[in-house]
Amino acid sequence: MEEHRLKAWFSWRPEELLLQIGHTPFWGLSFLLFPAETEPVLFVPELEPADSFSNDIKVVRFPWGNPNCQRPFTVLEEKLNAELKTGHISRFDVGVFGASSGRSSLPVQSAEQPPIPDEILPVLTRNFVMRKELDAAFLRLFLLKTEEEIHHIRRANQVAHVGLEAWCASLLPGATEAETAAVTEAAIHKCTGTNGIGTARAWAMVQSGPNTANAGRFNRSSGRRLETNELVLIELATCVDGYWSDLTRTTMVGQGKTEALHLLSAVHEAQQAALRSILPGVPAGEVDAAARAVLSHAAYGSFFTHATGHHVGFRYHDPGFQLAPGVREPLECGMVVTVEPGAYLPERHFGARTEDNIVVTESGAEILN
Amino acid sequence: MEEHRLKAWFSWRPEELLLQIGHTPFWGLSFLLFPAETEPVLFVPELEPADSFSNDIKVVRFPWGNPNCQRPFTVLEEKLNAELKTGHISRFDVGVFGASSGRSSLPVQSAEQPPIPDEILPVLTRNFVMRKELDAAFLRLFLLKTEEEIHHIRRANQVAHVGLEAWCASLLPGATEAETAAVTEAAIHKCTGTNGIGTARAWAMVQSGPNTANAGRFNRSSGRRLETNELVLIELATCVDGYWSDLTRTTMVGQGKTEALHLLSAVHEAQQAALRSILPGVPAGEVDAAARAVLSHAAYGSFFTHATGHHVGFRYHDPGFQLAPGVREPLECGMVVTVEPGAYLPERHFGARTEDNIVVTESGAEILN
Repeated sequence: MEEHRLKAWFSWRPEELLLQIGHTPFWGLSFLLFPAETEPVLFVPELEPADSFSNDIKVVRFPWGNPNCQRPFTVLEEKLNAELKTGHISRFDVGVFGASSGRSSLPVQSAEQPPIPDEILPVLTRNFVMRKELDAAFLRLFLLKTEEEIHHIRRANQVAHVGLEAWCASLLPGATEAETAAVTEAAIHKCTGTNGIGTARAWAMVQSGPNTANAGRFNRSSGRRLETNELVLIELATCVDGYWSDLTRTTMVGQGKTEALHLLSAVHEAQQAALRSILPGVPAGEVDAAARAVLSHAAYGSFFTHATGHHVGFRYHDPGFQLAPGVREPLECGMVVTVEPGAYLPERHFGARTEDNIVVTESGAEILN
Repeated sequence: MEEHRLKAWFSWRPEELLLQIGHTPFWGLSFLLFPAETEPVLFVPELEPADSFSNDIKVVRFPWGNPNCQRPFTVLEEKLNAELKTGHISRFDVGVFGASSGRSSLPVQSAEQPPIPDEILPVLTRNFVMRKELDAAFLRLFLLKTEEEIHHIRRANQVAHVGLEAWCASLLPGATEAETAAVTEAAIHKCTGTNGIGTARAWAMVQSGPNTANAGRFNRSSGRRLETNELVLIELATCVDGYWSDLTRTTMVGQGKTEALHLLSAVHEAQQAALRSILPGVPAGEVDAAARAVLSHAAYGSFFTHATGHHVGFRYHDPGFQLAPGVREPLECGMVVTVEPGAYLPERHFGARTEDNIVVTESGAEILN
């Protein structure tokens, strides 16, 4: 804020609150005013659980969810204005992240999208400063994870691993994709309350046999039953107290057929090549190129239809550059990215991907799960 | 459209697409142009699964998710303009629902909020007609469910019931709230692929003992272990192919204590009174009053801190009037609402709610689960 001559920063997306104060909103309707010189002020609905934010922050409640209040966001606006006035902060000195990438993280209550009503944000952020340099500076905070954030993302990956073990044990011919997905999600959900975890939750998407060929376009589970000697793929999004893991595994039910085993082996080799290429200073595109070279050499190049990776941790997909062809941005220590080469052969009716989350360190890629 | 002299209607929220063409978007980035006189046109990302929309609709793909396209929404805008031009439809003759209530349903891929980028909607809907009368007319379509929609919502409730049975079987002293929630969600998830169900998914929130006193403010599961002779409450959101059920049960682990049993009994009586009061033409506020009278008579009136019900089916909470004090809108045949009285006694450390989904018929409330 000093560098950009701002007196405060305003945030509202769940991942922005997580980044700034470690708070994961329950309802998804929390707003943060973070002055440069005084304590942050968190505006939360009356119904927000009190244990979801720490005691060292000023909390202002507004009457969303109160049946006696018809215009809760008007009250919020008034309370925000009062805080600005008390802090002698002009609206022209408050920054806000304008580079929405069209996605955001989920609040704890995730059964409904609680976007703030369309007409509210422009009112709340009236005359706030939105500039490309500010977006870029704030984005750096998303990309360069702190030790504490890496600790939390590692924990999300460890919880995800519990799910993957349950998944492997469920892979029997005759089980449906959805059944194995349900087992995986349940194993992760049950970690809630263990080792200090507040909420663990997962989205498992399992595709088997010919459905694996779709996994480069979308991931979902169906009622298809696993058969022996075919590939099965799980895409697994895990959220532990707001921090995300994004893993994929492809494996074989039974002994397998030569052709699919060949693909699986090439995908694993491609991931290893990408992992070996990771060092601080290496352009992201080079990591992608390392994976792509292996798959091309194995004649799967044209079937690798997505990027090799993306930033991860504050969301299932963090904003920022991808590990994709031609991307020149260099990797830096503290960046957490996925490494997930894959190849999908619709005409052969199978596909495969393997995905881990790594943190870039001085000595290379450290796998977090 | 004829009544309001519109030549077309434009929709983008998942529940609007479900209502209009029975389509549940996978990515949450689908847009529908529904002309009054020609066939509807559905704009979907390139990556959208082809089996998620029926064959009798015109589908136009735009390159979201295509790594070779930097501005997929610009392409979408061009394709929308082309369709308008072909249909000789002026933008000034296209209606759009403007009454966002600040929530929307989830797409199939629900691990990330895919709101359309902030800057895109104003461009897509430039000069479209947004008027209060149109909002009100469109809202009627949400409130008055068709036979087919009621069939789908009943199915969602039946699937939810499978989850509730699994939940009851899991209620043993020593189990954590999250464990019983995980079992419930898994039982529902496993219905995917059975009886023609494409995707079944649930959000189970279980609170036990003193945590039940919070259930009027928020619902979530923790690692708390169930104890004998205490109340346990489940709030259960279930989505089956886009249609939603919203159920709550409170029950006793073990034999229970007199005071909590008294509350539970009063809540059940309140629900019965509300259900008996439902008939076409009855103002929604009277149903609320019927429930509230029972709880007041039992001295729990001031602890019943929310409305008696809301519309449900296209979302976990549909837009529209609530069954709340003073609401004058009358119930009509085909409306589907929750009936969910509850009372929460923080000082006594327990609370209870029971919730069913009903359709209003000529002869009264028909429970859907």
